[in-house]
Amino acid sequence: MDTDSPKVGIIMGSQSDWPVMQAASQILADLGVAHETRIVSAHRTPDRLVEYAKSAKGRGLKVIIAGAGGAAHLPGMTASMTPLPVLGVPVQSKALSGMDSLLSIVQMPRGVPVGTLAIGEAGAMNAGLMAASIVALDDETVADKLDAFRQKQTDSVGETPVT
Amino acid sequence: MDTDSPKVGIIMGSQSDWPVMQAASQILADLGVAHETRIVSAHRTPDRLVEYAKSAKGRGLKVIIAGAGGAAHLPGMTASMTPLPVLGVPVQSKALSGMDSLLSIVQMPRGVPVGTLAIGEAGAMNAGLMAASIVALDDETVADKLDAFRQKQTDSVGETPVT
Amino acid sequence: MDTDSPKVGIIMGSQSDWPVMQAASQILADLGVAHETRIVSAHRTPDRLVEYAKSAKGRGLKVIIAGAGGAAHLPGMTASMTPLPVLGVPVQSKALSGMDSLLSIVQMPRGVPVGTLAIGEAGAMNAGLMAASIVALDDETVADKLDAFRQKQTDSVGETPVT
Amino acid sequence: MDTDSPKVGIIMGSQSDWPVMQAASQILADLGVAHETRIVSAHRTPDRLVEYAKSAKGRGLKVIIAGAGGAAHLPGMTASMTPLPVLGVPVQSKALSGMDSLLSIVQMPRGVPVGTLAIGEAGAMNAGLMAASIVALDDETVADKLDAFRQKQTDSVGETPVT
Amino acid sequence: MDTDSPKVGIIMGSQSDWPVMQAASQILADLGVAHETRIVSAHRTPDRLVEYAKSAKGRGLKVIIAGAGGAAHLPGMTASMTPLPVLGVPVQSKALSGMDSLLSIVQMPRGVPVGTLAIGEAGAMNAGLMAASIVALDDETVADKLDAFRQKQTDSVGETPVT
Amino acid sequence: MDTDSPKVGIIMGSQSDWPVMQAASQILADLGVAHETRIVSAHRTPDRLVEYAKSAKGRGLKVIIAGAGGAAHLPGMTASMTPLPVLGVPVQSKALSGMDSLLSIVQMPRGVPVGTLAIGEAGAMNAGLMAASIVALDDETVADKLDAFRQKQTDSVGETPVT
Amino acid sequence: MDTDSPKVGIIMGSQSDWPVMQAASQILADLGVAHETRIVSAHRTPDRLVEYAKSAKGRGLKVIIAGAGGAAHLPGMTASMTPLPVLGVPVQSKALSGMDSLLSIVQMPRGVPVGTLAIGEAGAMNAGLMAASIVALDDETVADKLDAFRQKQTDSVGETPVT
Amino acid sequence: MDTDSPKVGIIMGSQSDWPVMQAASQILADLGVAHETRIVSAHRTPDRLVEYAKSAKGRGLKVIIAGAGGAAHLPGMTASMTPLPVLGVPVQSKALSGMDSLLSIVQMPRGVPVGTLAIGEAGAMNAGLMAASIVALDDETVADKLDAFRQKQTDSVGETPVT
Repeated sequence: MDTDSPKVGIIMGSQSDWPVMQAASQILADLGVAHETRIVSAHRTPDRLVEYAKSAKGRGLKVIIAGAGGAAHLPGMTASMTPLPVLGVPVQSKALSGMDSLLSIVQMPRGVPVGTLAIGEAGAMNAGLMAASIVALDDETVADKLDAFRQKQTDSVGETPVT
Repeated sequence: MDTDSPKVGIIMGSQSDWPVMQAASQILADLGVAHETRIVSAHRTPDRLVEYAKSAKGRGLKVIIAGAGGAAHLPGMTASMTPLPVLGVPVQSKALSGMDSLLSIVQMPRGVPVGTLAIGEAGAMNAGLMAASIVALDDETVADKLDAFRQKQTDSVGETPVT
Repeated sequence: MDTDSPKVGIIMGSQSDWPVMQAASQILADLGVAHETRIVSAHRTPDRLVEYAKSAKGRGLKVIIAGAGGAAHLPGMTASMTPLPVLGVPVQSKALSGMDSLLSIVQMPRGVPVGTLAIGEAGAMNAGLMAASIVALDDETVADKLDAFRQKQTDSVGETPVT
Repeated sequence: MDTDSPKVGIIMGSQSDWPVMQAASQILADLGVAHETRIVSAHRTPDRLVEYAKSAKGRGLKVIIAGAGGAAHLPGMTASMTPLPVLGVPVQSKALSGMDSLLSIVQMPRGVPVGTLAIGEAGAMNAGLMAASIVALDDETVADKLDAFRQKQTDSVGETPVT
Repeated sequence: MDTDSPKVGIIMGSQSDWPVMQAASQILADLGVAHETRIVSAHRTPDRLVEYAKSAKGRGLKVIIAGAGGAAHLPGMTASMTPLPVLGVPVQSKALSGMDSLLSIVQMPRGVPVGTLAIGEAGAMNAGLMAASIVALDDETVADKLDAFRQKQTDSVGETPVT
Repeated sequence: MDTDSPKVGIIMGSQSDWPVMQAASQILADLGVAHETRIVSAHRTPDRLVEYAKSAKGRGLKVIIAGAGGAAHLPGMTASMTPLPVLGVPVQSKALSGMDSLLSIVQMPRGVPVGTLAIGEAGAMNAGLMAASIVALDDETVADKLDAFRQKQTDSVGETPVT
Repeated sequence: MDTDSPKVGIIMGSQSDWPVMQAASQILADLGVAHETRIVSAHRTPDRLVEYAKSAKGRGLKVIIAGAGGAAHLPGMTASMTPLPVLGVPVQSKALSGMDSLLSIVQMPRGVPVGTLAIGEAGAMNAGLMAASIVALDDETVADKLDAFRQKQTDSVGETPVT
Repeated sequence: MDTDSPKVGIIMGSQSDWPVMQAASQILADLGVAHETRIVSAHRTPDRLVEYAKSAKGRGLKVIIAGAGGAAHLPGMTASMTPLPVLGVPVQSKALSGMDSLLSIVQMPRGVPVGTLAIGEAGAMNAGLMAASIVALDDETVADKLDAFRQKQTDSVGETPVT
């Protein structure tokens, strides 16, 4: 398989999720992890969802990141149709601030796991980091970049607050 | 179409939902509405879900009642694949008492509605009643039975509490 | 009955609910479903509520959509006085973001169902869609328009997010 | 008016609310306040609700205590049809522990107040006490009994916890 | 006692509560109910609280309205030191939107009631209305004004929403 | 001052809080910190509360631990009348599991702090530990006992779970 | 590295978490994934936590599963000290049913991800499954067993509910 | 030890917490309590956390104030590594308004207490006040300043609201 073929698939329920989910794409790019981004709506494009989830492993993906808001079914339904690890990002919803998104994603029944990250952009970035940490298990280059990112992150924390 | 062919489909994510969902089946039986009951797990049997939802209208169903708990994706995913009205019943979950089930079902995005009932057995019975009220729009016999049920219900309320 | 007589009644507790509830009216208009819109306050005009609910079926309505916020009693009280299917829309409230509206509408006791949609405008639009799906059970024209709407909705989902 | 005619009306949505609501009746009896108890279901007996609320003042009642659970509409609907002060008691619900009952009762819109007490039996007893405090404004005998009750309550609090 | 002496005392924990609590004062003024307004902080002026609550009945007050936010102790502590009916208004808090205020006020233990209204300005206005309804039990003039207010409120509800 | 005079005052709103609050007393006894236990109800014995809080510092207390449930006003009101550090323990309530107790205690306004511990028995024990840590700042014997307790606690954690 | 050396580390804050966390161990055993189980308390054994987290990768672990309840800091603190993917299991807490555990684990800030599973035993089992899916990316034997498990799970879902 | 050496340590997880946490620093400065302010991120600088917490007592600190948001682990982890009293300030989070922060800080298990203040700036100021009240137990100057602050605070409360 081509080393540049995507290792991580980032999917989201709507174009409106992109401002949040691009944080996952950005950190993967920073860490040199090839990935793809797709809009896959569980509710508006269920056939696309089935096709995407079922073909993911065969196409060489190792991890899927799925972001959605409200009654967020995309991560769990993806997980029901692929043996790959699926990470879920609860996108902040208008009325309930993402508590609905969070519970819809994390409270999966036994047998079909979704590893859920924090609500919103922090969760999206962290989904990218976690996907990278999985890819890094078998890729020294990514592992080194991840270590460097973490060290830089630690070094960037100032000693005292600046008024 | 055979008058005895099912008009309402009751589906649930697991055998363990049956003690709750049978209240829907019972009231439909009481009101003389032909119906079927199936276990369709969004997460464990996604193919069955696709098949059930896509074939529902063609098989003569008029309404689908779907019950599930936790990250409850069955009602919403069914609604994504059928033009029929879908009613959702949030089954009470162990840790969060069904608040997760409720939000996972009711907070559907624009374009794919699920008419959601109360958490637990009351919601299941009411889903049956609401399905009957839809069937009754075009079936005088069911309409009369529904009226009789409602009148009897009203008459059964005592005047003063019994100590 | 005149084919243009309203099939769906949209009621709301206050003029201030209209910016939310008009989404229900709009989609019904788009789908060619005749409907009416009324302000009926459960708390400020209880007599109007009684009259509206009790006369609804006789006037030829098939479905009632009721939207309200806070201690939202309009959908449930309407359902107590009509055998028609009643759909409830929780309008987002100021302090509690519509969680009070949602629970006041969805947690109906056994015997009197309200099919509840999502909080806010998405719920209002979906109430319109669900009402249309009920009307469509006996109206091929509406059924076709609904199918077309759903197909168009599916087609409108882009493949990849646009930055 | 007969001094023994009821001054306080205690209504509840169901016989099943009586174990909670009897605490209101008991304290009123202890304080010598004539009262009546009725089952009035907002959803199952809406006509009885209208009749009860509209006739309450004319029959000499001064305060109405209304208890209900889940989507608890009884207190607010009563308040919409009487100028009398209405006290609401949220009865603990099965799934949501009375949080739904509380919000359905307390979050009334401007113009139609319900004075809401705590969830469950403590709230029912306190509704009785508050009704008595209102009656006591114009009834020295009740006022004296209320003072005595409060003094006795204070005296009954031990100094140190008993192991 | 002078007929112009205050019948209702409106207290609040802070000057910052006044924009909310003035709705109580306004409606009482509209209904011709003499009242007073005071800042009484349970936490910053506990002595003033004790003095206010203990002297209230002797000074001729019939009802106390107390508004506070966050860990809102003012209504309950007032109720602990007066036999008068106490109405509580949960002022919307910054972080938790008044849910903390609401629970701190409504969840009083058995023996010391606070009749709690809705969170925020609607609750403040309704506290004024409820206080008026209590005063009206023994004051025909206020009763008539209250009836007129309610009728006018009903009449002001339009028939159809204005776009 | 007598070395055996109490350094910590443990107060609670009701005898029914004792099964929870005794964990505070027990750990203080284990650590050799002299303390007293009292029932002080903010709502039923407000005069006792004023007296207790105002006299606490003069009687040589250094810390006050206050436990209460529901609309829990005891910790905050105590803090309003003493300059001593006050620790609050939210006792688990029947309907809302102590969430009401927690918010009523922790959400104090600026100017009057209550250091709040976890809901229930763990919080009571921890209030005792924290009081001891404050006493230990000026008492080597208690400091040594606290260190020993912490070391023993660490040592007691097994390496692997026992089936 | 020895093929039998553990690939997954399961840690938990207390012996009392074992009845929940053993579901993770069981499914890993069923899928033939070598793993270890340890009690590591973030609060009572912080040194052990540091040592465990920092040595995990060097000892050949690929994934860490961490379960804890209440203010659950174990998963997040582990993630702060290892580049390995960390999965968090919120153990159901006594008062708040695990909502505190869930939020303490999932709401990690940007830069340090924890993939969070459902509250309680289902979450523990799913953490095991997700860990296996990560191990399976580079281990065909585990991948085959995981596929077999998923197929068997699908096959085990009955068609119709059994009364 | 130098009288000007810091008695209170204020730590926070991020520079972004400073606008909230400076309220703690300000009140300590106003009360003449020497203190230090540091950024210590539990997740990004775990080694710094260990060093800070373990050295705190030896460096002469008497109290530590720790503020953090979201999955807020800083206060509890600090408490696990020092016998000093630790006060926690939940910083308001973006999506969940600080409810996650609050529960992550306050729900500590038995054995490791964190005295938790209100969400946000009020909590930060109160943490400073409570730290001062602890320092004041052994420092008459601070005790006098604290008394003066409290008196001034009481005096500043106006009698009547200003429109």
